[in-house]
Amino acid sequence: MLFFTQCFGAVLDLIHLRFQHYKAKRVFSAAGQLVCVVNPTHSLKYAPTRCAAVQASAEQGVLPPCHHHEAVHDPQLAPCTCPLFSCPWEGHLEVVVSHLRQTHRINILQGAEIVFLATDMHLPAPTDWIIMHSCLGHQFLLVLRKQEKYEGHPQFFATMMLIGTPTQADNFTYRLELNRNQRRLKWEATPRSILECVDSVISDGDCLVLNTSLAQLFSDNGSLAIGIAITTSKVHSSEAEM
Amino acid sequence: MLFFTQCFGAVLDLIHLRFQHYKAKRVFSAAGQLVCVVNPTHSLKYAPTRCAAVQASAEQGVLPPCHHHEAVHDPQLAPCTCPLFSCPWEGHLEVVVSHLRQTHRINILQGAEIVFLATDMHLPAPTDWIIMHSCLGHQFLLVLRKQEKYEGHPQFFATMMLIGTPTQADNFTYRLELNRNQRRLKWEATPRSILECVDSVISDGDCLVLNTSLAQLFSDNGSLAIGIAITTSKVHSSEAEM
Repeated sequence: MLFFTQCFGAVLDLIHLRFQHYKAKRVFSAAGQLVCVVNPTHSLKYAPTRCAAVQASAEQGVLPPCHHHEAVHDPQLAPCTCPLFSCPWEGHLEVVVSHLRQTHRINILQGAEIVFLATDMHLPAPTDWIIMHSCLGHQFLLVLRKQEKYEGHPQFFATMMLIGTPTQADNFTYRLELNRNQRRLKWEATPRSILECVDSVISDGDCLVLNTSLAQLFSDNGSLAIGIAITTSKVHSSEAEM
Repeated sequence: MLFFTQCFGAVLDLIHLRFQHYKAKRVFSAAGQLVCVVNPTHSLKYAPTRCAAVQASAEQGVLPPCHHHEAVHDPQLAPCTCPLFSCPWEGHLEVVVSHLRQTHRINILQGAEIVFLATDMHLPAPTDWIIMHSCLGHQFLLVLRKQEKYEGHPQFFATMMLIGTPTQADNFTYRLELNRNQRRLKWEATPRSILECVDSVISDGDCLVLNTSLAQLFSDNGSLAIGIAITTSKVHSSEAEM
């Protein structure tokens, strides 16, 4: 942990001193710790839940219909699960990554542990910060969203989704960690599949949730650093032993 | 951790099978893990902030005035910092523990690591679950509060306060941990002194905050188990090295 904080401090210094006018999706690598600067995506519109969160049907390989599409879906297609609301794209699960990269220019990072540095946390809700994370032979989507669940009270929601099926997602555990100002907050969970809907994960609150005041305590100069780690899941075996 | 989860599982089984009609403040000890069942205290009334959170003056040994007392305070007295709002008691810091035990019947537990098992999480806000924790030669107060910061949306706030001065509090780190349903949430921070106000800590949101949905995910049969650990703080030295 000391190693982590030292590297992280050094990287933050580097950012503050040398990169005042950063651009989106720049990646720094210092002492083995990969830090990705993620600029916000200002979403124009949110429905309360974009997709029906039909976890059961997704588990059976049947894809949930999107509320904003009236047409009947080909069950072999995955709807575009990029959390940018207005995207009408649909495609096979295998080409979701290339769609996210090419159409939405979402960056992809390699490495078991990375630091996600979200800038401009003060921007009004709704705002998203999104990155893809390639790790353990799979791609994951990290979504940090600022949203007003209660009017006038924006909160931050962070979750990680596997670009894969729910059954594949069950093999992993992701950890999000905030560490600053003598406070540390860690969230560990099994990632959801992107065949489920990021909107419903966030509206259910089944993710890392930060009030504005906590987000400010963990922020530095308007940027929030989230340490991300993904491991293969041992939860099932330890629960079985219980 | 495996040891913790195993013990915890065993203890929960014990509780469910043998103690259907528990009473307040019963303590179980199984395999070295101390579990305290804490029944709720239904608070009748809350002010937005009972005390002015004058940390600076508290640091200097001057006690913050309480908003609900009009009289001038003797700076040698600590106002009753029991989070039960209606208590008018004031006294020296040294006798706060005996006041809390005798007047409010708040239980005190020994041990570096305990499990706080709050029952009846469904009760309407405002509700408190309170315990004292004796550890490393000091007494700490754990407060779990269900409160509606946003009308109609109750949240749970958990924090730990040292029954001592802010300078003494700086020497410790407390950790609150929830672990259930393949999710884990950890909060680590320096405890506040009870000379600061628990109300202001909670209204600032500088504590573990749980939405109702997350609280339900972490609850078992209406009870929420919070693992508590207190250590002497190493934060200052590691920050200095950064």
